[in-house]
Amino acid sequence: MSIDRPTPPRGFSDAEFETRTARCQAMMAEQSMAALLVCTEPEVRYFTGFHTPFWQSPTRPWFVVVPATGKPIAVIPSIGGASMSATWLDDVRTWSSPQPADDGVSLLVDCIAEVAGAYGGGSVGLPMGPETHVRMPLGDLDLLRERVGGFVDATAIIRSLRMVKSEAEIAKHRHICAIVSDAFDELPNLLSTGMTERQAFQAFRAEIVRQGADDVPYLVGATGPGGIDDIIRQPSDREIADGDLLIFDTGSTFDGYFSDFDRNFAFTHADQGAKDAYRAVWESTEAGLAAIRPGATTTEVFTAMNEVLKANGSLGNDVGRMGHGLGMQVTEWPSNTDSDGTVIEENMVLTLEPGLVWESGKAMVHEENLVVRGDGPELLSRRAAPELPII
Amino acid sequence: MSIDRPTPPRGFSDAEFETRTARCQAMMAEQSMAALLVCTEPEVRYFTGFHTPFWQSPTRPWFVVVPATGKPIAVIPSIGGASMSATWLDDVRTWSSPQPADDGVSLLVDCIAEVAGAYGGGSVGLPMGPETHVRMPLGDLDLLRERVGGFVDATAIIRSLRMVKSEAEIAKHRHICAIVSDAFDELPNLLSTGMTERQAFQAFRAEIVRQGADDVPYLVGATGPGGIDDIIRQPSDREIADGDLLIFDTGSTFDGYFSDFDRNFAFTHADQGAKDAYRAVWESTEAGLAAIRPGATTTEVFTAMNEVLKANGSLGNDVGRMGHGLGMQVTEWPSNTDSDGTVIEENMVLTLEPGLVWESGKAMVHEENLVVRGDGPELLSRRAAPELPII
Repeated sequence: MSIDRPTPPRGFSDAEFETRTARCQAMMAEQSMAALLVCTEPEVRYFTGFHTPFWQSPTRPWFVVVPATGKPIAVIPSIGGASMSATWLDDVRTWSSPQPADDGVSLLVDCIAEVAGAYGGGSVGLPMGPETHVRMPLGDLDLLRERVGGFVDATAIIRSLRMVKSEAEIAKHRHICAIVSDAFDELPNLLSTGMTERQAFQAFRAEIVRQGADDVPYLVGATGPGGIDDIIRQPSDREIADGDLLIFDTGSTFDGYFSDFDRNFAFTHADQGAKDAYRAVWESTEAGLAAIRPGATTTEVFTAMNEVLKANGSLGNDVGRMGHGLGMQVTEWPSNTDSDGTVIEENMVLTLEPGLVWESGKAMVHEENLVVRGDGPELLSRRAAPELPII
Repeated sequence: MSIDRPTPPRGFSDAEFETRTARCQAMMAEQSMAALLVCTEPEVRYFTGFHTPFWQSPTRPWFVVVPATGKPIAVIPSIGGASMSATWLDDVRTWSSPQPADDGVSLLVDCIAEVAGAYGGGSVGLPMGPETHVRMPLGDLDLLRERVGGFVDATAIIRSLRMVKSEAEIAKHRHICAIVSDAFDELPNLLSTGMTERQAFQAFRAEIVRQGADDVPYLVGATGPGGIDDIIRQPSDREIADGDLLIFDTGSTFDGYFSDFDRNFAFTHADQGAKDAYRAVWESTEAGLAAIRPGATTTEVFTAMNEVLKANGSLGNDVGRMGHGLGMQVTEWPSNTDSDGTVIEENMVLTLEPGLVWESGKAMVHEENLVVRGDGPELLSRRAAPELPII
């Protein structure tokens, strides 16, 4: 059913997880950190390879403790015991959950105490900063903080680990971006005026899967006469008409790694304002691509892109940034903003996403995906056409 | 492309949101609660109708404040302003996010102070109990708690609201359960030995969408000779062989409401142990259905089901419960456990999910979906065959 396309290997070697853990432990050692606790899906997957959509169930908390030396330790509900034991981990501790009276808290406290004791004391890290949250009931978290004696913020460690990708991760990104590029190329053959937005969504979703994606967790879009004004919408029963603009923005996945880029189309014709807005975001992306290199900052990239938008009469936009990191989540650190200031490193996977509102009050957002190489960006998405495509 | 099937209306009337808010405010009044804060996807959607997959991006926090009287107030990133303003809400406050130095915290504190001041003081609620978490950085949450002067636990309010469904919600559940029932019925025509697990997953996922589902966010399954030992797995490249058992468990959606049930199949033949295990979980479900009525407790339902499993030689299971609530999430409160004790009410949507490990060490899990009516359960999933189906 799917297209003939070489598929990268699924999963990762044990060596990949050993490297991730060793990099983490080197940063922990600099801070005399005895243990690092994570409890969110991408972090648990990063250290273990445990990959399941079961996280959609909010019922049970899941924990992984990274000790100062040795493999991470899983402290998880028994329903995940078989899957977690099939990963590279050796130490998988389970309890029968849900158990509201003590849903893993005591088991986790004991594990942390054991790990910290073996280290001879030291702090216990937990990500507490931007783009993180603690996935357990606040009442249990308060109890945990009291019994552990407090946590220190480990956001910087997790952030710097996850922002730079391995070649094995990059291969998965490249694969899903190629799939979605091909699916976007098929759109003119799939869509026509008279279809509803909902039918257009279903046709595009089916095409992405036909091209070989595992799933399409993120798909938003909109249509509207002469342009659109909301870029995170779900489809309606509105029929596509002559003169409409369409945006589709999708985060599709291969083996748990995301693409995240959009494309804009006009049906039968477009006015000059829409064409100019499209050209402006395309040129802005060119400026972003030219600014991307190891050592540059996300703020420099933002500024380079924003100058082009301002020169083309942008009235601003509501997105709050012009691109971001990409990985196991559809958006990750860093953000291309006027103050983010993250130093760009080789093998970061990033999006460039300039957007503007033009004089009609409509929005135009454009996006590409890339990996940072020593000499600049390597595009992962197939570069969009420089002029607004008309179907 | 999709099957000819009457489709329930999408979205909800303003009256539905008014009723939800009024029920919430009545419970708040009993506790002199001036405001209730929610920040997770289903809760925000419950009070506003705001529905987008954008929540997959961890970058920005989103808040809704329910005051003692009047409509809820949204305090959200500007990227969501257009979508949120299209809901029934009147008061949508936005800030340009991401903005790590103050990512909505001051705007939210001001909103809560205004609402609580208008009420003349009183507590501020936040869900802190089982099956909840606070979706914002812990550092910002600590700051928020300090500036608000602390929160009281509002889990009981949110839980009791969301556990009982309206007829409009039930219609969405009934529709997606019918779609998935039909897709399961097609499986014998879609699957055969020699296919890989991954091909089987893709075929089933495509069939669910073809039957009219919006999406298949949750799909797990496994195959194995004579049975399976892990029920939350992702597919492998293992080829299905004669004598294999297969389980598929899916949470598919229509208009943001889930089905959640599984089916088991054998290929070409099955041994007596597998047949007996299947029969036992099927009979256990019959006992659960007989026990479901308004006024019974989830513990009574659990006990009725567990007695059947014990009588059939169950060696226990790792799931930790035998069914749960179903709604905007693939699992919701309550849980059918030996101590949950939730009193079952009319219009709760529940799953029955007995599981056992039999003497081979393999697991068998079975699941049905239902809505509780005055005189007992109304099945939403089409009842599985009483004997293990063989493909």
